[in-house]
Amino acid sequence: MAAQFELTREFIEQLKDAVRNNDEVLTYNLVKDLHAADIAELYTGLTIEEAKYVYLLLESEKAADVLIELEEDEREKFLNVLPGEVIAKQFIDKMDSDDAADILGGLSEEKKEEVLQNIHDLDQAVDLVDLLNYPEDTAGGLMAKELIKVNENWDVETCIHELRKQAAEVDEVYYVYVVDDKDKLKGTVSLKRIMLARSNAKISNIYDPDVISVNTNTNDEEVAAVMEKYDLVALPVVDSIGRLMGRITIDDVVDVIKEEAEKDYQMIAGITEDVEPSDNVFVLTRARIPWLLIGLVGGILGAHVIGMYESEIKIDPKLAMFLPLIAAMGGNVGVQSSSIVVQGLANKSIDLDSTWRKLLKELSIGLINAATFSSLILLYNVIFTQSVHLTLTVSIALFTVILIASLLGTFIPLLLNKLRIDPAVATGPFITTMNDILGLSIYLGIGRILYGVFHGL
Amino acid sequence: MAAQFELTREFIEQLKDAVRNNDEVLTYNLVKDLHAADIAELYTGLTIEEAKYVYLLLESEKAADVLIELEEDEREKFLNVLPGEVIAKQFIDKMDSDDAADILGGLSEEKKEEVLQNIHDLDQAVDLVDLLNYPEDTAGGLMAKELIKVNENWDVETCIHELRKQAAEVDEVYYVYVVDDKDKLKGTVSLKRIMLARSNAKISNIYDPDVISVNTNTNDEEVAAVMEKYDLVALPVVDSIGRLMGRITIDDVVDVIKEEAEKDYQMIAGITEDVEPSDNVFVLTRARIPWLLIGLVGGILGAHVIGMYESEIKIDPKLAMFLPLIAAMGGNVGVQSSSIVVQGLANKSIDLDSTWRKLLKELSIGLINAATFSSLILLYNVIFTQSVHLTLTVSIALFTVILIASLLGTFIPLLLNKLRIDPAVATGPFITTMNDILGLSIYLGIGRILYGVFHGL
Repeated sequence: MAAQFELTREFIEQLKDAVRNNDEVLTYNLVKDLHAADIAELYTGLTIEEAKYVYLLLESEKAADVLIELEEDEREKFLNVLPGEVIAKQFIDKMDSDDAADILGGLSEEKKEEVLQNIHDLDQAVDLVDLLNYPEDTAGGLMAKELIKVNENWDVETCIHELRKQAAEVDEVYYVYVVDDKDKLKGTVSLKRIMLARSNAKISNIYDPDVISVNTNTNDEEVAAVMEKYDLVALPVVDSIGRLMGRITIDDVVDVIKEEAEKDYQMIAGITEDVEPSDNVFVLTRARIPWLLIGLVGGILGAHVIGMYESEIKIDPKLAMFLPLIAAMGGNVGVQSSSIVVQGLANKSIDLDSTWRKLLKELSIGLINAATFSSLILLYNVIFTQSVHLTLTVSIALFTVILIASLLGTFIPLLLNKLRIDPAVATGPFITTMNDILGLSIYLGIGRILYGVFHGL
Repeated sequence: MAAQFELTREFIEQLKDAVRNNDEVLTYNLVKDLHAADIAELYTGLTIEEAKYVYLLLESEKAADVLIELEEDEREKFLNVLPGEVIAKQFIDKMDSDDAADILGGLSEEKKEEVLQNIHDLDQAVDLVDLLNYPEDTAGGLMAKELIKVNENWDVETCIHELRKQAAEVDEVYYVYVVDDKDKLKGTVSLKRIMLARSNAKISNIYDPDVISVNTNTNDEEVAAVMEKYDLVALPVVDSIGRLMGRITIDDVVDVIKEEAEKDYQMIAGITEDVEPSDNVFVLTRARIPWLLIGLVGGILGAHVIGMYESEIKIDPKLAMFLPLIAAMGGNVGVQSSSIVVQGLANKSIDLDSTWRKLLKELSIGLINAATFSSLILLYNVIFTQSVHLTLTVSIALFTVILIASLLGTFIPLLLNKLRIDPAVATGPFITTMNDILGLSIYLGIGRILYGVFHGL
């Protein structure tokens, strides 16, 4: 029984030493019992030369598995140093078609041609060329061609005979798909059902016609939502006239689900690329600059707004004390409101309320929060500040800012979603910065009006 | 072939009408072809009385499935109106043990006893009591008892015979587990392998000993990480002496992965509970108040800091213009840095760099960003501001704040992780607010020093 493997810095050092000493035996012994996913993980700790050394010692089936587990950019680096023939024979041949297509898709046109020409199984080459035509983020781009299908007109005995033949080419069998003479998907039949049925039973009498399928051009987020909602392990993919084209397995969809969650997270964190702490300084910096730039421009606009009220601040410098508080509270409320909407939309949690009812609900929440926090700051200012003017300005402004930020935070992602723009944008820097500036304008505007009132008294 | 179902407001209205008119036939016809997951979704649009009406019309197997698909709180509402005997016979009996245990776990002690006493299959009752002993967030809490296992000493024929018997109780067969006489997990054998082998072949000669398993007390996030890394559809769970106790399927783990991602998202969005837009105003408000409270207290502390520099602001009110900019940039940089660390830790992406090297790297990124943005604001102020004092203050402060926020943003989540506190806390309100205050202090402190320098000239 293989235990899980915990990669340590010591292990990497030991391996690097073995490679440095050109000790093939020790190197091989260190990695031979590791799972392909562990070897792939290991590679991130090695230089490309070290990794190549380890790699060439592996059996080719394991080498293929390692390749699949590698991060996309690591993998491309690797394949660039290998001839097309080796890629075709050692890897592509041993992979499921969806993984093989992913790998081919990452190669240059020239290299791709070279690999395809070296695939001797014509059917496989046709499958791959076919898969490469689907955009990556659709069901067609996610699916594999390997699946087990039986004709509805067969009996169980023919079916078992065919299964034995087909099963040799498919790694894992989750469902057996049932098709008609035109290859149209009719339903599924479980291995269990086949095993329990009499051998002369007709498939058409024992199959389950309730099968959920998607179209080749269904987008990947929709695929993930369907598999998740219906708790599916594999999902058949059909073309526009219902013919069975392939199947998507849950492990591919787990990646889609994670990527989707990460995209939203990066948006709210103000990062524009999918980065890892192990990426280089350039990549990490590039991912951060856009948000900071928007923040800077927003800050400058905010400075202009404040500059317009210079004379008020000169008369009452205490007005400046609450500038960051107002800006921060507006930003916080806005992010909270929009992130709830964004998550709700991502979860496709059904919500039959109309936009108006949603805004009405948010208005209630906004009113409660606005009342709570403007009262608290009122209390604070009554006790600690001598200025009636300041006290009133801060409380009225905070009330207004919380209310407006709540409503905008709810409305903007709903609007973006209607316009088919990713609603997560509403949690990002642009809207947050806009909220900040709005908050400052409201605060200082109220301050000026009240100053006029008090001055007029 | 069942197409996917798109729930519309019109459909809900039609259904509500049918219920209102007490039209059992129409109601049943509306829902009878829907998937359990769709019916569960439907329920969120109905009142509890309407839902109950629909529910009582369903066949009991489908009713059980609907129950599993319901949100936890919806489900509890439902079960509270049903007697224990009905729950036991109509539902628990038709569910996989992991789902049944989840449902029992949500009931009151009294009701749980009542249900357990009404389960007539003693084995099943024992399984359930057993499963209820494991904490919800461990492998034991996630696993189901239903699995297919064969003894390593059997031959293929005995094995197929046993499989037919066992398969009747297990819905989906992903792997056939191989155990020894003491029930210890030895490996797996695929159905495909069994189908292709000669009938007198010994299981011990055809099984695959490379099986990854987890212990009953492995925590759920670890389980998710293992299944994801090794692309597993089912994962066997063993006890401390290696005996096979159950299996976890990927659909349960997809939920864990999603929950984990949502937890981090809520942290960075400043929401303290798992809320949906459809929750009531009270729940939605309660989830938001804590962050806003921290924000308010932080804002007041910030106001105190600014108050200490009242005389400087009175002399040069332009100093106030850049207060929100400095606070916002510090906050943004901090959130960016810490969110990258948090995501890296969540992905368990291997990173063999020591903490010192990580901080050194972040120092480089921080320096680039600090230099970039302080130069930009310098340029702006040189062109648009007449004050040399203000220009220098803003640039030096922005440089310092970006650098410190970068380093703190990296260091704090790493520290929290070492202390076994969820590092996502570092993206939350407390640290962000701290960054704001730090930024203001640095800015105004530098302003005062430079004022001294210029005044001294």
